Amino acid sequence: MNEKNIYDLVIIGSGPAGLAAAIYATRAQLNALVLEKEVMSGGQVLNTYEVDNYPGLPGINGFDLGMKFREHADALGAQFAEDEVLSISTLGESDSKTQEGEQEEKELQAAELLEPSSVGYRIVGENDSYDTKSIIIASGASHRKLGVAGEERLTGHGVSYCATCDGAFFKGKTTAVVGGGDVALEDAIFLARGCEKVYLIHRRDALRGAAILQKRVMETPNIEVLWDSVVDEIQGEEHVEQLQVRNVKTGTKQALTVQGIFVAVGIQPNSEALKGFVDMDAQGYVIADESGKTSRRGVFAAGDVRTKMLRQIVTAASDGANSVTSVERYLTEL
Amino acid sequence: MNEKNIYDLVIIGSGPAGLAAAIYATRAQLNALVLEKEVMSGGQVLNTYEVDNYPGLPGINGFDLGMKFREHADALGAQFAEDEVLSISTLGESDSKTQEGEQEEKELQAAELLEPSSVGYRIVGENDSYDTKSIIIASGASHRKLGVAGEERLTGHGVSYCATCDGAFFKGKTTAVVGGGDVALEDAIFLARGCEKVYLIHRRDALRGAAILQKRVMETPNIEVLWDSVVDEIQGEEHVEQLQVRNVKTGTKQALTVQGIFVAVGIQPNSEALKGFVDMDAQGYVIADESGKTSRRGVFAAGDVRTKMLRQIVTAASDGANSVTSVERYLTEL
Repeated sequence: MNEKNIYDLVIIGSGPAGLAAAIYATRAQLNALVLEKEVMSGGQVLNTYEVDNYPGLPGINGFDLGMKFREHADALGAQFAEDEVLSISTLGESDSKTQEGEQEEKELQAAELLEPSSVGYRIVGENDSYDTKSIIIASGASHRKLGVAGEERLTGHGVSYCATCDGAFFKGKTTAVVGGGDVALEDAIFLARGCEKVYLIHRRDALRGAAILQKRVMETPNIEVLWDSVVDEIQGEEHVEQLQVRNVKTGTKQALTVQGIFVAVGIQPNSEALKGFVDMDAQGYVIADESGKTSRRGVFAAGDVRTKMLRQIVTAASDGANSVTSVERYLTEL
Repeated sequence: MNEKNIYDLVIIGSGPAGLAAAIYATRAQLNALVLEKEVMSGGQVLNTYEVDNYPGLPGINGFDLGMKFREHADALGAQFAEDEVLSISTLGESDSKTQEGEQEEKELQAAELLEPSSVGYRIVGENDSYDTKSIIIASGASHRKLGVAGEERLTGHGVSYCATCDGAFFKGKTTAVVGGGDVALEDAIFLARGCEKVYLIHRRDALRGAAILQKRVMETPNIEVLWDSVVDEIQGEEHVEQLQVRNVKTGTKQALTVQGIFVAVGIQPNSEALKGFVDMDAQGYVIADESGKTSRRGVFAAGDVRTKMLRQIVTAASDGANSVTSVERYLTEL
């Protein structure tokens, strides 16, 4: 921060949305920086053992796809820094700055790097801080985990958090879905089209998902609902082989033979550091439409972290492109 | 049409949006058909000589990218038919059918293929007709052409209709943009960041684009506006070498040495056959948000044909995925 470099754009996150944004920003000749908290780019994609729905790259494994995105951004000259965002504050607005911030802003204004009327942001990370005219939040989301034995070890080997992503690999197999909300019901219906049998394991005695979805689940002959049940352990050598399931009311235990288990107990946006900075919905998703515009000018959201209908690699990549277009328009109007 | 096959979904168009929809629909086990009017899939992509902004596939040529999308859909077992859509009518609504249609609908209802309360559509093409529960319109758009000598021959060899797509290949070169609207101005500003010089050729004495963009054009030192001017011919052996430009007021002619010419005189959605069937904006774009929902239930729009902020391969592919998700929800509720 000594040389007072003001970026045109800082992209927070290096999953598909962040990397697509980096590709578009670099091509648009913006002075942009990608902040990534992991040593490896790619985000959730890295944990998907086979991606078969990113158009143009059938059957690629998640790790390779993540690398391809990163190499694409690198080839265009995108800049990266490894850092985890702790907080973001405003430059150029009088209501939200410290005395030190005020002093620095005056220096910036004197240096004509930041016009008095413009808004800029200071991102404070664990390693450094970064001043920028605009921000794309592409910090992604994390699937909630069951937190049971075998889950982490067998992730990508029969344990999945995305039926739309991985369901097609279980055609003719027996699978289980854990959860009782819309996503769990949609996953079960989706899987039942291709799987021989689908267990829906729910810890309560009633589903939470939409009535219409509940009706469909009940009408689908190869879905069996296990009520009041939880998974205690996921077992298998190389791949998932069986689940230890317990009825929480009766205490009865049973071993269920399955080749796949889809955990649909919710996902959580990685938006903790942004609380109070941009408007979010009740779950913590940053409220933004497909343009990426958030409640704060110059700040955009792309990919899984924003409110949207379908969280997929291609929709995240699209968000990256759209949000850079929004940034370009924003910078033109500054 | 003899065997009364009712598709779950007919996808109209086989550019990136249509092919991405085919990939997602096939993976969702829908009985889906893609109608393509050309013998070759890929849409406008086929005419792009190098695509460098589809994340994960840097520097691929447009033809190869089109083929990759098509092969991906083929590998999953997507069904295709070559046909051009002439008209679409409603099955299962009393206000919009011929006597013959009514008779056929009764037969369908008797066969329990179409419930009385449900809505279905009949797509009439040049070669055949197709009954379906839902439709994704992915018929794309076509760039308006100048209609001058050399334009067609040198398309992909210096003549481009998309600065965002191809601009990066002209770094350090001299280019011209033809047009005076927002897109032309944005293209000129975009190109000026990387090009040594950009001519903006406009046939009137005032630009039409947004004031803020006009201001930027005027302030950018390496953009030169040629007022009241039209391009009469695009010349060059293998690649664009020069333009014959004429001032329409004075009649003066000049030869302009450029390596690229970006035609930004508008694009037009391929929506002619859909007039009156779904709501469109004044330019003929099908009105739909990122979910793809149109004014008609069960009918969705994806890619360049819909109202949207950025028409790119990745945003079209994303639309394909989103619209199939909308179709799945729609079919679940039927």
